Amino acid sequence: MGVWIFGAHGGLATTVVVGARALARGRIAPQGLITATPLFAGVPLVDFPRMVFGGHEVRRGTLGGSAEEIARENGTIPATLLAGLRADLARADAEVRRGTLVNAGRAIDRLAGARAGRRVRLRAEARRLQGHLRAFLRRHRLEHCVCVNLASTEPQLELTPRHRSAAGIEQILDQDRVREVRPSLLYAYAAASLGQSFVHFTPSNAALVPGIQELFALRGAPFMGRDGKTGETLVKSSLAPLFKYRNLRVLAWQGYNMLGDRDGAILAEAENKRTKVATKDSLLARILGYAPHSHVGIDYVPSLGDLKTAWDFIHFEGFLGHRMAMEFTWHGCDAILAAPLVLDMVRLADLARRRGEAGAMPHLACFFKQPEGVPEQDLHAQWHMLVEYARAARA
Amino acid sequence: MGVWIFGAHGGLATTVVVGARALARGRIAPQGLITATPLFAGVPLVDFPRMVFGGHEVRRGTLGGSAEEIARENGTIPATLLAGLRADLARADAEVRRGTLVNAGRAIDRLAGARAGRRVRLRAEARRLQGHLRAFLRRHRLEHCVCVNLASTEPQLELTPRHRSAAGIEQILDQDRVREVRPSLLYAYAAASLGQSFVHFTPSNAALVPGIQELFALRGAPFMGRDGKTGETLVKSSLAPLFKYRNLRVLAWQGYNMLGDRDGAILAEAENKRTKVATKDSLLARILGYAPHSHVGIDYVPSLGDLKTAWDFIHFEGFLGHRMAMEFTWHGCDAILAAPLVLDMVRLADLARRRGEAGAMPHLACFFKQPEGVPEQDLHAQWHMLVEYARAARA
Amino acid sequence: MGVWIFGAHGGLATTVVVGARALARGRIAPQGLITATPLFAGVPLVDFPRMVFGGHEVRRGTLGGSAEEIARENGTIPATLLAGLRADLARADAEVRRGTLVNAGRAIDRLAGARAGRRVRLRAEARRLQGHLRAFLRRHRLEHCVCVNLASTEPQLELTPRHRSAAGIEQILDQDRVREVRPSLLYAYAAASLGQSFVHFTPSNAALVPGIQELFALRGAPFMGRDGKTGETLVKSSLAPLFKYRNLRVLAWQGYNMLGDRDGAILAEAENKRTKVATKDSLLARILGYAPHSHVGIDYVPSLGDLKTAWDFIHFEGFLGHRMAMEFTWHGCDAILAAPLVLDMVRLADLARRRGEAGAMPHLACFFKQPEGVPEQDLHAQWHMLVEYARAARA
Amino acid sequence: MGVWIFGAHGGLATTVVVGARALARGRIAPQGLITATPLFAGVPLVDFPRMVFGGHEVRRGTLGGSAEEIARENGTIPATLLAGLRADLARADAEVRRGTLVNAGRAIDRLAGARAGRRVRLRAEARRLQGHLRAFLRRHRLEHCVCVNLASTEPQLELTPRHRSAAGIEQILDQDRVREVRPSLLYAYAAASLGQSFVHFTPSNAALVPGIQELFALRGAPFMGRDGKTGETLVKSSLAPLFKYRNLRVLAWQGYNMLGDRDGAILAEAENKRTKVATKDSLLARILGYAPHSHVGIDYVPSLGDLKTAWDFIHFEGFLGHRMAMEFTWHGCDAILAAPLVLDMVRLADLARRRGEAGAMPHLACFFKQPEGVPEQDLHAQWHMLVEYARAARA
Repeated sequence: MGVWIFGAHGGLATTVVVGARALARGRIAPQGLITATPLFAGVPLVDFPRMVFGGHEVRRGTLGGSAEEIARENGTIPATLLAGLRADLARADAEVRRGTLVNAGRAIDRLAGARAGRRVRLRAEARRLQGHLRAFLRRHRLEHCVCVNLASTEPQLELTPRHRSAAGIEQILDQDRVREVRPSLLYAYAAASLGQSFVHFTPSNAALVPGIQELFALRGAPFMGRDGKTGETLVKSSLAPLFKYRNLRVLAWQGYNMLGDRDGAILAEAENKRTKVATKDSLLARILGYAPHSHVGIDYVPSLGDLKTAWDFIHFEGFLGHRMAMEFTWHGCDAILAAPLVLDMVRLADLARRRGEAGAMPHLACFFKQPEGVPEQDLHAQWHMLVEYARAARA
Repeated sequence: MGVWIFGAHGGLATTVVVGARALARGRIAPQGLITATPLFAGVPLVDFPRMVFGGHEVRRGTLGGSAEEIARENGTIPATLLAGLRADLARADAEVRRGTLVNAGRAIDRLAGARAGRRVRLRAEARRLQGHLRAFLRRHRLEHCVCVNLASTEPQLELTPRHRSAAGIEQILDQDRVREVRPSLLYAYAAASLGQSFVHFTPSNAALVPGIQELFALRGAPFMGRDGKTGETLVKSSLAPLFKYRNLRVLAWQGYNMLGDRDGAILAEAENKRTKVATKDSLLARILGYAPHSHVGIDYVPSLGDLKTAWDFIHFEGFLGHRMAMEFTWHGCDAILAAPLVLDMVRLADLARRRGEAGAMPHLACFFKQPEGVPEQDLHAQWHMLVEYARAARA
Repeated sequence: MGVWIFGAHGGLATTVVVGARALARGRIAPQGLITATPLFAGVPLVDFPRMVFGGHEVRRGTLGGSAEEIARENGTIPATLLAGLRADLARADAEVRRGTLVNAGRAIDRLAGARAGRRVRLRAEARRLQGHLRAFLRRHRLEHCVCVNLASTEPQLELTPRHRSAAGIEQILDQDRVREVRPSLLYAYAAASLGQSFVHFTPSNAALVPGIQELFALRGAPFMGRDGKTGETLVKSSLAPLFKYRNLRVLAWQGYNMLGDRDGAILAEAENKRTKVATKDSLLARILGYAPHSHVGIDYVPSLGDLKTAWDFIHFEGFLGHRMAMEFTWHGCDAILAAPLVLDMVRLADLARRRGEAGAMPHLACFFKQPEGVPEQDLHAQWHMLVEYARAARA
Repeated sequence: MGVWIFGAHGGLATTVVVGARALARGRIAPQGLITATPLFAGVPLVDFPRMVFGGHEVRRGTLGGSAEEIARENGTIPATLLAGLRADLARADAEVRRGTLVNAGRAIDRLAGARAGRRVRLRAEARRLQGHLRAFLRRHRLEHCVCVNLASTEPQLELTPRHRSAAGIEQILDQDRVREVRPSLLYAYAAASLGQSFVHFTPSNAALVPGIQELFALRGAPFMGRDGKTGETLVKSSLAPLFKYRNLRVLAWQGYNMLGDRDGAILAEAENKRTKVATKDSLLARILGYAPHSHVGIDYVPSLGDLKTAWDFIHFEGFLGHRMAMEFTWHGCDAILAAPLVLDMVRLADLARRRGEAGAMPHLACFFKQPEGVPEQDLHAQWHMLVEYARAARA
């Protein structure tokens, strides 16, 4: 089974590949993977040794180099573990192709360095990406692969009527309307047009516009997104129901996120940050039934690296109008929390396709900040959707 | 409808009566009461103006005096609200009778001051309590009342074979086995023997021993307990499932509670504290499926009064064996959080009896730290039990 | 002795007057006042009964009304205390005159409601303010009064060469250069030109421009500012030296402030917020000797009222390059923390004048976020400046 | 110059030796060492390459093994750094001798495993330890060495009149009064009797009893203790003065410490914990001038390893009797914070001896929780004592 990663050398992608190979070689326990728990006993999921990795990347460098940087800077990939996986990483690296930077925005262009700025026609660029994917499938004699978008958060794409249909998307490419695409749209197009599964793990709004969703449905491929739920928002969606259960009125919910790393540097750019905040701030109203005063801040703190620290303050009112408060601090490591989710979803997207499911996968809602087509934001309710699916999927 | 409170002048009891009367007079919104939300629309619950209050108390003083002390010391009962309710409180006060101190333990004896130390025969004491309850029902021509135990946490009662059956309980009383009862057992016996509903809101283990439960079933009265879930444990039961959903291994969950007030003073006594800690520490294993290293501390901090502040630290392990942490601080006010739960359960216990239900009320599990007969400790699962019940009770 | 407050009906001013009168009447202990501790035993400070209050205000309303609003909304002025002080507040109210709104900025104009927008010539406006002050002194046969600026934070004033000298200030007034003044400049001018002491408790940069400072020196009056140090910055200036003492390198110091109230509403306006952040963010470099990555956020959270909650996160590096962290949460009440400082400084400014001191009062540095003319930002070093002064001031 | 460590293979000792050698080889920057800052420019301190290490240890194992365990478990010693220092560690290891377990208490006996339980006469044991020290000095032709006690915290020693004088100590040894000594007393005796400098970094009360202090004075050797100030107490002593400066009354100061590792395991033993808590809880009264309600908890959380996490809650009262609160969380790494202090003090104790100073070194007060002979607990005042000393020691 193939796994094709857009953003193949990023911190998360690196952790995903290192982790999958370490699992394949029995070097680590599958902590953090829900598909490795008894809930999925009897569900015919693909095993780790069978996964073949490839992907697109816009920055220079190698997977091995990226893994070493992480081991040295963050320590989240143990140096001893890495030592035994160098050949595996080199093999995956051989499958990485140059990604696209079309209308990627200033922050991502800067990140990609010298490669930025080239101007190509959209249709040609789409064909180039499709070509890589086709060759990957052919080379490894794969029937199918799961494409995962782990590329940097893009500035919001302003949608036009053309984004509403699969035909409109083709028009955008044919008419070379550069300002109506982002890299994530081209990546998702490549996956959809070839009928491959797609997991959209970032908040970029361009990937799963209605026209792209239509294309996935037409080609019979499942997809899901968007924005993996790994930290502050995860806690929020677990905790907010408590206030509903007790009829405690939330007066204010303030959330402050800090992170370093490439992710943080990208989000320090105002236009990219807007994309992110949009996906984080909508769930309270959904869960509570009203919109309290709320704030979601994201600040770039270089020294933190991949350690995402968040502090939330919740002000609420109870009986006799009395006001009380709660705070929480989350000290997480982003890639460590996200990587097992990616692997879980790779397995589940593969399963869905084998089960003949196409279009959105609502049972994956618990993994996302903005689950496509699923209004439910209560983590517990989302969890039960997954539990039901797992039960049904048992032979 | 009657409401009979054991511990009728305590901070929580006072807040319950003040709140019920303020609701009856339309002076406050029912914030904090789940029975006042659309979930219970169409469910035939008793209205607040119809509730008549009475109870047992071992300390001197009045409800009005207790309310004023709270207004002055904690500010949780607004002075302006209190002004209009003095007559109502005096009326409830007229229904308060002297409670029992039989084998109450040193801390409660001390609290009750001069009244402690009297030695009476158990059977006579039980009859005295029953008499108060019967007279209350007769005086107000009530068919039924809900008894609520809000008295101080007692030292653990060591159980004997006699506690296992209703007959054994009668034997204990007849043979005057003082060391085999606590006040809460006598209170629960009074309620059960007269076929009245019973809500056991404190952690004392003596109230709902099997023999007493049998008696409730025999007399056709519903009951539920034990230990209202209002603060740190509430958050714990809302948050712990998250770690299960993500297959994150909890390595340690340390909880530190601080409180002042009479409750805090009682819990500063080691034997009473043990009773409390026992009910707080069991839920993690139930939710997670394994018992992580854990600790529950309770410290008496007089200056905090009724402001219960708790800090929890959760250490957990994720993908690649990486360790992360989360902290939360809860700044709650105990009586404010508990009083609406008491009123909710008074309404629901009354409803249950009218619906002909006897014995434990599992649908009230979400209100308790140790729900009798309900192994489920996941707040969200418990919530759905209540939702199901509310749906069934409509029309 | 006279105390003239600019912003006389604000939350802080109200707390100051209520507190001073409660102290005068022996109704409260002087908790929070450093001048009431043994450090100042033997220093000839004015007593509270001798203080007469007056001031300028731009909003409608009364001191009594403001005090009642605080008692009701925040509870920081106890209703029982207030009951006995109504006549005193009415007396102070009789000494309050209409303040100025010249170039106050949008947020303050909005706050002042209908009164905003009038256009007067600067010289006339200055004379009007001076007239109020002179009449106050005459009416109460006061030799001297201490003027305190507690008015809302203004947008930054862009300084011109005219701000550099007392003569330049006169030019601004004569040439009616409206865009070169703010209300706080006119207030400070009124105080300086009449040779009255001045305490500048807010961050507005217009009040103590060099020309105004020159005027104070010329007229022999002492002054000090700016921006009272009451919460997060106070903790910061107490804690930052620790990192210096241990040669721990601060990598990042992130501070998040939340507040409601009028203050919060004003600071929600971007131009006013800039003024505030500027005074909060400069001290780390001064204390540590280098400027770490830092951030100071201020967010408006209406439900908090006067409860200022702040969370700071400090990331630091120690031996072997190991990184560690510290967090603190400050749950303060702004007016409660600031009011005793104002009263301390009123007494100390009065003392300074009687001792014949003119110009900046460096010994008051510990009370300010940006102490005029004092580079020292270490709270402990600042404290020792006050201790030295107190020693010298003893008879 | 020689450095002799009691507890030579512990986590802290290992970090000290690794750090000193890394500094000697120019592999790391001296972050965390105050003697490496400009404050000590011109002060003739010994350089790291000149330090020779040796010591006593009761557990089996090697320095290299201990360092590797730390690198693997805690990650605080980088594996890459360690690689280049193996030979250095082996050299230090060759100088480690078997320590003493006389009356060490159950927890330490258990830690030392099979070696425990031997019964020797005290005088012989003292001679054995002296012999090791003498041979070390001779072997390396050292005039002098600094002895540092980093051994595990012992149970409190109950003092007798014999502990009050140097003669009494000799009596204890001669009369073989085993219950009147602890290992730390024998270690300190060895150092004192040979006129070597001594730094007592742990809270054990046996090391610096008056008789031992007298012996140091008699033999002209400087010493200081006790209990290195590295985490929660450090913050406390930096923060508590703030409340004094503002005349804010501290109502309660609750401190909760969690740690894993060998240290944590030892402190989980009640009798050893008492020794520790005693040194942590005394400083508030000293700084504030009154003793607020306070609590210091220490809990063993194995998964934390050397990461010491502490949460403090401070409840305080301000103007108008209003109550407010502050919390802080400290996420430190004990050995990382302590090791540079040990190296600082080794240099300063060596300097003191060369300057002819004998007895207690009050200028080192800022490094200790309970500075011998120094009542001052304010970190800032203690810091100025060090600053004064550094100034005097220049030239």
